[in-house]
Amino acid sequence: MDNKEYFLSVYRHSMAHVMAKAVMEIFGKENVQIAIGPQIDDGFYYDFMLPRTITNEDHKAIEDKMREILKRREDWTCKEVTKEEALEIFKGQKYKEELINDLPAGEKITVYYTGDDFVDLCRGPHISNSQELMNVSYKVKSVSGSYWRGDEKNDQLQRIYMYCFPSKQELKAHLDFVKEAMERDHKKIGPEQELFMFDESAPGMPYWLPRGFKMYNAILEFWRKLHEEYGYQEILAPVINHKNLWETSGHWGHYKENMFLVTNASVNEETDEEEINTDIQYAIKPMNCPNAINVYKNGLHSYKELPLRYSETQVIHRREKSGELNGLFRVQMFHQDDDHTFLTEDMIEDEIGDIMDIAKFIYETFGLTYEAELSTRPDDFMGSPELWDAAEASLKRILDKKYGEGGYEINEGDGAFYGPKIDLKMKDCIGREWQMGTIQLDFQLPLNFDLRYVAADGSQKRPVMIHRAIFGSFERFIGILIENFKGAFPFWMSPYQVGIVPIRPEHNEYAKKVEKALRKAGIRVEADYSDENMKTKIKGFKKFKEPYILILGDKEAEEETVSVNVRGNKQMNGVPLADFIELCKKQIEEHTLDLIDSVE
Amino acid sequence: MDNKEYFLSVYRHSMAHVMAKAVMEIFGKENVQIAIGPQIDDGFYYDFMLPRTITNEDHKAIEDKMREILKRREDWTCKEVTKEEALEIFKGQKYKEELINDLPAGEKITVYYTGDDFVDLCRGPHISNSQELMNVSYKVKSVSGSYWRGDEKNDQLQRIYMYCFPSKQELKAHLDFVKEAMERDHKKIGPEQELFMFDESAPGMPYWLPRGFKMYNAILEFWRKLHEEYGYQEILAPVINHKNLWETSGHWGHYKENMFLVTNASVNEETDEEEINTDIQYAIKPMNCPNAINVYKNGLHSYKELPLRYSETQVIHRREKSGELNGLFRVQMFHQDDDHTFLTEDMIEDEIGDIMDIAKFIYETFGLTYEAELSTRPDDFMGSPELWDAAEASLKRILDKKYGEGGYEINEGDGAFYGPKIDLKMKDCIGREWQMGTIQLDFQLPLNFDLRYVAADGSQKRPVMIHRAIFGSFERFIGILIENFKGAFPFWMSPYQVGIVPIRPEHNEYAKKVEKALRKAGIRVEADYSDENMKTKIKGFKKFKEPYILILGDKEAEEETVSVNVRGNKQMNGVPLADFIELCKKQIEEHTLDLIDSVE
Repeated sequence: MDNKEYFLSVYRHSMAHVMAKAVMEIFGKENVQIAIGPQIDDGFYYDFMLPRTITNEDHKAIEDKMREILKRREDWTCKEVTKEEALEIFKGQKYKEELINDLPAGEKITVYYTGDDFVDLCRGPHISNSQELMNVSYKVKSVSGSYWRGDEKNDQLQRIYMYCFPSKQELKAHLDFVKEAMERDHKKIGPEQELFMFDESAPGMPYWLPRGFKMYNAILEFWRKLHEEYGYQEILAPVINHKNLWETSGHWGHYKENMFLVTNASVNEETDEEEINTDIQYAIKPMNCPNAINVYKNGLHSYKELPLRYSETQVIHRREKSGELNGLFRVQMFHQDDDHTFLTEDMIEDEIGDIMDIAKFIYETFGLTYEAELSTRPDDFMGSPELWDAAEASLKRILDKKYGEGGYEINEGDGAFYGPKIDLKMKDCIGREWQMGTIQLDFQLPLNFDLRYVAADGSQKRPVMIHRAIFGSFERFIGILIENFKGAFPFWMSPYQVGIVPIRPEHNEYAKKVEKALRKAGIRVEADYSDENMKTKIKGFKKFKEPYILILGDKEAEEETVSVNVRGNKQMNGVPLADFIELCKKQIEEHTLDLIDSVE
Repeated sequence: MDNKEYFLSVYRHSMAHVMAKAVMEIFGKENVQIAIGPQIDDGFYYDFMLPRTITNEDHKAIEDKMREILKRREDWTCKEVTKEEALEIFKGQKYKEELINDLPAGEKITVYYTGDDFVDLCRGPHISNSQELMNVSYKVKSVSGSYWRGDEKNDQLQRIYMYCFPSKQELKAHLDFVKEAMERDHKKIGPEQELFMFDESAPGMPYWLPRGFKMYNAILEFWRKLHEEYGYQEILAPVINHKNLWETSGHWGHYKENMFLVTNASVNEETDEEEINTDIQYAIKPMNCPNAINVYKNGLHSYKELPLRYSETQVIHRREKSGELNGLFRVQMFHQDDDHTFLTEDMIEDEIGDIMDIAKFIYETFGLTYEAELSTRPDDFMGSPELWDAAEASLKRILDKKYGEGGYEINEGDGAFYGPKIDLKMKDCIGREWQMGTIQLDFQLPLNFDLRYVAADGSQKRPVMIHRAIFGSFERFIGILIENFKGAFPFWMSPYQVGIVPIRPEHNEYAKKVEKALRKAGIRVEADYSDENMKTKIKGFKKFKEPYILILGDKEAEEETVSVNVRGNKQMNGVPLADFIELCKKQIEEHTLDLIDSVE
């Protein structure tokens, strides 16, 4: 913890005491049971048992009472007490009593007084006088239900969350950030723009709606084309595999509880009753690795064929606790931009170099900045230390070359037991960091599956594997893109690129011609032939933030031009249809991020 | 059974007796136990218990002995006997004894004599003299193991299959057909051309290998583009759904045993033992319908939005008995070119008309002919008879219009209980018929899921659904295409379209330039930069039946031309690279079936 973080934690923690004191003064000390009040990322919370439910009206009262308490400029004092003394001090405060009783005998117990009428059980440290908190800026964030000690069998309490920052400016900046993040929330924009939906019959398993699936496919196509140029080969493998495969890969032993297992029902001929088969033989894949290995094992490969790169975007499933599901960010069903590369040890450096180039190109295409982190040999590593040393040296050389020495982080001892790895972390346009890409060397699976290649000397040798994904998962990546672009996507990946508005029904004929020409050119287009008026039609497309809206009337039909509304901001009239099509094609080919202002 | 079939059945059945008699004469009557010998599609078989295994050398001996027996021109006589007499006649023939003992008391028993030294228990009818069989043409097809009465707990027998046709010409025609079909077998060509594979860890669940997946995607893209033009919207939905959904759709009640059910393992905290959850809540989807319905229900739709067409190619799974799996033709995991359309009753006729147009275009693109069959109201229909009458009349009108009256078959009473349907049957280039496309009206699911639309008068009405697929499944359709095209695919859908052969390593640079230019133009290309000689490289590509092989040497590099080998038959030298690219693009755009002979 650096100095700033340390002071922030002391301030937030102290403010939690001030809030507890304020709540007691408002509701009357004898009516309030106080539980615990830790600091968190953006402030702190405190859990209370109160005589009634906190309403929005109480927020300001609590904030005001806190201000009043701070203005008293009370001294804060710390006192070391015995268990018996502590129980006496907190007599009647059942949660505190429980906490004290749970402390091991002989443990040092400290209590902190704020003035002489409020005391809390606390390890500290705290400030010495409320004066120090006068510049701190705070605001009730929300109130929610919680259970004492997080257990739903215990008392239900009310948890008051508060934002808390060292200054007014910092609180405001944070509130602006929160507002901005809420407006960018993919769980809000996704359904609004009809990109995806969820149904209760499939928790954490997204439905891609027509518009969202368009975008999904645009991104998939971009990824596919790029990887083909780099010599990747795409496969499509089964979703279900026998447990024998999962036993060999190690998933059955280490990952089974996160896997959906497969069974079946059959009618017992003797009892005529339906039975569920409990002798589980098959499971739904949580990862693609063993399938890629099966394809590799389908033939005996010469060193000349390596590296062999089998990429796959087939659907995978992982069980998550329902409370941990979160829109497209945490799902139970997703598609990875996965690849498994089989290669010799001395190919590692070049191959990783190529992967870093691919990652750079991809992230830059989406306008995202990123940083690399290298994780090295952990204590429980497998394989020879020499192999690890050589592999890590390769990775360092390539990272030095790409980012300069010190241009990336090293997490010593943080690699997987089966090999070192490079993680790629992206930053979005409001500064949030996302772990996305990962490039992992693997010495273990080639051993488990007894993989071979024929070396130059005719002997059979064991290849190394690389697991890698640049997006991570399409679902999560698109979730991030929705938030990064706030739903106004770059032209090339936009769910629909052009919306067509015939001014009146008599312009439908020309509109259909334009629609057909655009579609033929590979441009995603929607047209509104309803009998609504022009303004309503334009509004409909604006809701979806279509990059271009074409408005077509007499003049356009006569001259074979289009009038183009760019993101609802700017309008250019009389653009020849052919020119407009060329512009669109160019923007798709060049993966244009910003729309060109001037169409001429 | 028509006359021809009747005589064929008598002849084949009689020939089975002749084979049994021949086998007894060869091995000695006392050493042979005869079981049963029915006629089948292409001849007949007979099951025997023999003193040794039949080898290939025995085939001719059996055929010759049969010829010898026929030449005896023996009379065939039928005799009606009592159970006791029958047991006496077949004394020592244990399988016959068992059959006789199983007959109900008083059942008429007939035995047939061929000459006076061979008798078989048989219902007949048979010929009256072997003379009648003199022109019949026959040949041992294969010998395989079988179990008495098909039960593996019983004796293992040897089953001798024989082809049997009325004339030499007909047998030869059939043998030619069988040879042709074997050469076209997708289970042979698929792995040879590295299109797909199976692994024992996923029975009936194909792996699409890189080459096959290219073809899969070319067909998917063709399908997708065509359907977009017809206003279809594609979605991607979950693979797993809660049983509540399957209960509403009726699959839980009627299709459960064909579904893969989902469960999970968890460690019991008290016993610390792993437990399998038997309270099944989720199942893997065998069909896409309920997901499309969920998307429809995501909003309230106006009649103006209808028809709404939600297509989907997400992976589906259906349990099959392992003995019934058959390459890509019968699988447990596949992808349908599925669609569910929601519409009003008076839209049915136009919509079906459009679907018939789409089907026609698709089948013709693949060079396949097809026929339509209409299946009408069964006895256990649901919905109002008036609705059925109107719907059937619509379908008949559209079929009359497309194929002329009588230009399609009508299967009276053969529709599903939920609505009438049209099946589309294709014929491949060697005359085999395949049931592929299906277009089904559904009045039931809209009721089960309480679907609505807002009618013009503001009231809420129930839409009709259409389920339809043109390919059926991508897997099965591609299997049929492999057999139809014998692995030499039309240019536009070929797994790889162009193979590049640099004559010597110094031509690799130009070859890479050509490869890049082709790839940029969207042409699927492979290049062989190995140090093999030119002939070996060409041979490698010919194995895959690449439509075009480009041979690149000094002259080509200098003039920026390519020398083109077309399907290994014809070679054209000095074609300008730009012209070749244009030719390829044209052939892709026009879905060319046959390669253009002259490249100039």
